[in-house]
Amino acid sequence: MFQEKLIESKVNKGITTPKGFKSVGIHCGIKKSKKDLALIVSDFPATAAGVFTLNKVQAAPVLVCKENLTNGDTFRAIVCNSGNANACTGEKGYQDAANIAKEAANALGINAEEVFVSSTGVIGEKLPMDKVIAGIKKAAKETSENEFLSAAEAIMTTDTFVKSRQTSFMLNGIEVSIGGIAKGSGMIHPNMATMLGFITTDASIEKQTLQKLLSSANKKTFNRIVVDGDTSTNDMVIMLANGASGIRIEDGTKEYNLFEEELFGLLKNLSMDIVKDGEGATKLIEITVDGALTDADAEKAARTVALSPLVKTAIYGEDANWGRILAAVGYSGIEFNPDKFEITINEVKILKQNYFVTLPNAIANQTLKAEKINLLLELHFGEGKATCWTCDFSEEYVKINGSYRT
Amino acid sequence: MFQEKLIESKVNKGITTPKGFKSVGIHCGIKKSKKDLALIVSDFPATAAGVFTLNKVQAAPVLVCKENLTNGDTFRAIVCNSGNANACTGEKGYQDAANIAKEAANALGINAEEVFVSSTGVIGEKLPMDKVIAGIKKAAKETSENEFLSAAEAIMTTDTFVKSRQTSFMLNGIEVSIGGIAKGSGMIHPNMATMLGFITTDASIEKQTLQKLLSSANKKTFNRIVVDGDTSTNDMVIMLANGASGIRIEDGTKEYNLFEEELFGLLKNLSMDIVKDGEGATKLIEITVDGALTDADAEKAARTVALSPLVKTAIYGEDANWGRILAAVGYSGIEFNPDKFEITINEVKILKQNYFVTLPNAIANQTLKAEKINLLLELHFGEGKATCWTCDFSEEYVKINGSYRT
Repeated sequence: MFQEKLIESKVNKGITTPKGFKSVGIHCGIKKSKKDLALIVSDFPATAAGVFTLNKVQAAPVLVCKENLTNGDTFRAIVCNSGNANACTGEKGYQDAANIAKEAANALGINAEEVFVSSTGVIGEKLPMDKVIAGIKKAAKETSENEFLSAAEAIMTTDTFVKSRQTSFMLNGIEVSIGGIAKGSGMIHPNMATMLGFITTDASIEKQTLQKLLSSANKKTFNRIVVDGDTSTNDMVIMLANGASGIRIEDGTKEYNLFEEELFGLLKNLSMDIVKDGEGATKLIEITVDGALTDADAEKAARTVALSPLVKTAIYGEDANWGRILAAVGYSGIEFNPDKFEITINEVKILKQNYFVTLPNAIANQTLKAEKINLLLELHFGEGKATCWTCDFSEEYVKINGSYRT
Repeated sequence: MFQEKLIESKVNKGITTPKGFKSVGIHCGIKKSKKDLALIVSDFPATAAGVFTLNKVQAAPVLVCKENLTNGDTFRAIVCNSGNANACTGEKGYQDAANIAKEAANALGINAEEVFVSSTGVIGEKLPMDKVIAGIKKAAKETSENEFLSAAEAIMTTDTFVKSRQTSFMLNGIEVSIGGIAKGSGMIHPNMATMLGFITTDASIEKQTLQKLLSSANKKTFNRIVVDGDTSTNDMVIMLANGASGIRIEDGTKEYNLFEEELFGLLKNLSMDIVKDGEGATKLIEITVDGALTDADAEKAARTVALSPLVKTAIYGEDANWGRILAAVGYSGIEFNPDKFEITINEVKILKQNYFVTLPNAIANQTLKAEKINLLLELHFGEGKATCWTCDFSEEYVKINGSYRT
């Protein structure tokens, strides 16, 4: 757990663990009573990086964020509302997103171009702008170093727990911190679930270097959970680096490598938090494909297994139905030899080469009693390896999504 | 309904409606008590055509069928067992499938190369060959023109009703018939559900012409339902043409076109039967995408919508959540302009261009009260058009698949 890596003197404060960040989450009235507006502010101009959905349908806040990130050098704040995605809202929706940035800038005494805007919730409805604007004004007065949990809470939709992580570590004798919050729901299938992540650090990192760090860590964490960041209309991960620690991270240095490792660990933990909180999930499933022709093939196979409703319902039912797993790899589109396929579940090899079943079903099924399932799929076909994370698939998923808007 | 097209004098007899075919379904003991072995026999040598799964992992019977179809000119029988897929069973499984053909050939007094073998059920378990062989011997004695329903029943797994269709029509004053049975389950997602179809006709059709007819009709019917014939380890559709009607169908004639139309109709009806019987399904959904750049784009978009658990759970919950539909088209990978997107549900246009919502949610939701849902998605981007069929997604799907082997 990355929390445990915190330096002793340090208190866990999520995204406000890095120096010079404040945040808050409030209820502005989009939702009936739950918190629905988060504000994250850096005391100092920060560089920023972002990764965004690849959906052809891009929500208004995504467009505004991409413009600001492309045009600007330094940034100061992130505003995020939940309960309404401001997606498929046309020109009016775009104006609303731009106005949120303006109103936040006014309230904070900064420029609109320094503000990122994010939304999550129902698609196709206009934002109640009067409530949102009043909320922004209120939130701007209430940000503090201690309001990191309320911010994490205010970006939730069907999430059942707050996803907040931080890590602090020494670089050249100076303490550096990274904090992050995330939200994710509907992650049983990568179809358009909204996944948001907001990351802060008090390291000083050039914009390009920060983008490289975030993109690379994102690729092996948020993009490896079956939320599939790139298919929602609203997905985004934004990272701010304000330099308040006094430590500068430059590409190609050992500090860079250390920082990258810490960032990867933090994003991985947030990713696992999201999967664990999968709608209706009862088990966290880590799928590692080893021995594929290439890493890309391994990822393709792992992702296909992670997507298979038949595999996920079998794991939910604690049925070690290995035929479904092998068949999923079979239709993933990669080259491999089914005769050499082996499956290990939580350290127990249940299938050896040439379809040799090592254990009676009833015993093999015992391996699925745990809450964390490690699925190792060995192809013996090359050196490619990759890991994805997903969760099992229960009746509860259908209940949640059948009545989402009611 | 194609049944209604039957010529008056004709009795509905499914795959034995065409002259010179007999069939039967019996219980041989793979399953506890339900029928699990079907035999279809042509009195005369028949040409044959087949379409098979594209999964890298191909079940033993698929391999045997492909060999026989490639090497042989005429064929006489199809044996199909349910309850065990004979997939991922290695060399032993292949021998078992080959032996089934041999045993059926012996019992029927024909050659093993004239027999097609098919299996559906659990993957990775060896067939109880003593039971299967005894069953084949029994079945060979019991085939008749009236045992078409027991054959349809014996190929079922989680199917809740028998899928049997026939059509008879006049060609040059002579009556020609086509009959078909099918089974399909787990069709909520195209991942590896087994779909089987066996089609008979008493027309005389050359092997190549028959393959052309079957492939073309299959492409727009079985391949357009979200069972996705090409991802299971066992999927196959086999068609036999025994010429008993005396009518010959040749490519490029008006008889060919008429026959093709009838075959398409029959396969479409069987496809709809499969979707209707989707595991846990409560609604049949027809998705038509119109105005895409190309037909291929339209199919891609329709298929993506048909696959989206979020769309399918929303329809199950009778929630006209159009944002989910638009977002699914958005991540389908096709080119289109979201601003021009329009949605019509059961003749009611609920979304017009520029995200104009024509009705309050509560009223739009009424369009989903029906059991058959027609979803028309207009892109206004080109001339491409395609239709796919799927079903909604209920808690029951998870229940069925979580306890499939128990």
